[in-house]
Amino acid sequence: MKLYETATAPNPRRVRMFMAEKGLLEQVECIEIDLAKGENLTPEFVARNPMKKVPVLELDDGTCLAETMAICRYVEEAHPETLPLLGTSPKQKALIEQWLRWIDFYFMMPVGMCFQHTSGYFKDRMTCFPEYGQDCYGKAQEFMAFLDQYLATHDYLVGDEFSAADINAFATLAFARVVKLRADSSLPNLSAWYERIAARPSAQV
Amino acid sequence: MKLYETATAPNPRRVRMFMAEKGLLEQVECIEIDLAKGENLTPEFVARNPMKKVPVLELDDGTCLAETMAICRYVEEAHPETLPLLGTSPKQKALIEQWLRWIDFYFMMPVGMCFQHTSGYFKDRMTCFPEYGQDCYGKAQEFMAFLDQYLATHDYLVGDEFSAADINAFATLAFARVVKLRADSSLPNLSAWYERIAARPSAQV
Ligand SMILES: N[C@@H](CCC(=O)N[C@@H](CS)C(=O)NCC(=O)O)C(=O)O
Ligand SMILES: N[C@@H](CCC(=O)N[C@@H](CS)C(=O)NCC(=O)O)C(=O)O
Repeated sequence: MKLYETATAPNPRRVRMFMAEKGLLEQVECIEIDLAKGENLTPEFVARNPMKKVPVLELDDGTCLAETMAICRYVEEAHPETLPLLGTSPKQKALIEQWLRWIDFYFMMPVGMCFQHTSGYFKDRMTCFPEYGQDCYGKAQEFMAFLDQYLATHDYLVGDEFSAADINAFATLAFARVVKLRADSSLPNLSAWYERIAARPSAQV
Repeated sequence: MKLYETATAPNPRRVRMFMAEKGLLEQVECIEIDLAKGENLTPEFVARNPMKKVPVLELDDGTCLAETMAICRYVEEAHPETLPLLGTSPKQKALIEQWLRWIDFYFMMPVGMCFQHTSGYFKDRMTCFPEYGQDCYGKAQEFMAFLDQYLATHDYLVGDEFSAADINAFATLAFARVVKLRADSSLPNLSAWYERIAARPSAQV
């Protein structure tokens, strides 16, 4: 299997952590895509993912899977012998999916949009609306306050067990530094959780 | 089970269609939430979904599940005797999830953001950036062109079988009328597919 990804980008990081937690990262050949240079905009890359984003997992039969959680879903389903990270019972699977979506829509999106619209990092390929980006900053802050409050009474995001939800929130929070958002001392529960996840070997990959 | 939802809103519609396809819609008590009146912003509702959005499914044990696809996942997993709509093999599950995410991020989001930022429908609770909303219109148009091209050689979005991906793209396209986006004669494959899905009994609920 080949993973088309970018070492510094938050979405690929989620996949690397997910695979590392399952002990499968060594089975994947990682291929670095330089986003700033537009290596994700070439016809070869677009053939793998028409949405022009990393990560993309190419299976040995040539099938390309785009989208972080679709890749994680494949890995989870194809390797039932590994640590489950997307839940086992219907209710637990659904609660993890709820959290994964909360993190995507109300944390990763605002952080990513704040970054893209205020930094101009991708201004060669998009129109930037800095005031919208600034508004997204406030949305991301709100979600971090929500997480901090939630984590006052929970060790992990779902059912007090480590899951993909922790991976995704962690990778998003780590990336949020680029827009100067951090879990500082005003968010003690979020910081403590962050340090706990950061100490896992999978957080080093 | 209770479904907190809004009859005219696109996200709840996906859940209703999903349940109707499975023959389970009658087992659910639907509770209408008036979004314009802010019934989703009350303390009672926020206790069910801190993100303040419909749909929310309340299970008989009191557990509340927010997020369209988390609800659908629960229903799929809890009712293995019904028509599978999220795939069966690891690869098919992953391809459906890829498409569901493409539809959410590159179609539903731009349509929703175009609507919210240009109409001011929720201006009591958000800051509107009309130029950003207009930019989203272009993004949604691009995705419709992509769908049209894809559907030139496919009857359904994934693996030539009806799946949740068709439901979600359909509900999004139906909603896109509010921003004057339609599958007209310039998108013949998308229109033909739309009519095919619209003819299913589940599209009437
Ligand atoms: N919804 C996608 C998002 C992927 C995404 O936005 N990837 C970013 C890097 S973290 C990217 O490829 N950006 C390049 C671009 O926008 O040109 C997923 O979950 O995989
Ligand atoms: N990501 C959520 C989106 C839910 C959503 O945005 N729902 C809209 C109606 S379609 C809503 O509740 N809007 C009310 C508001 O924003 O105040 C899901 O998939 O369920």
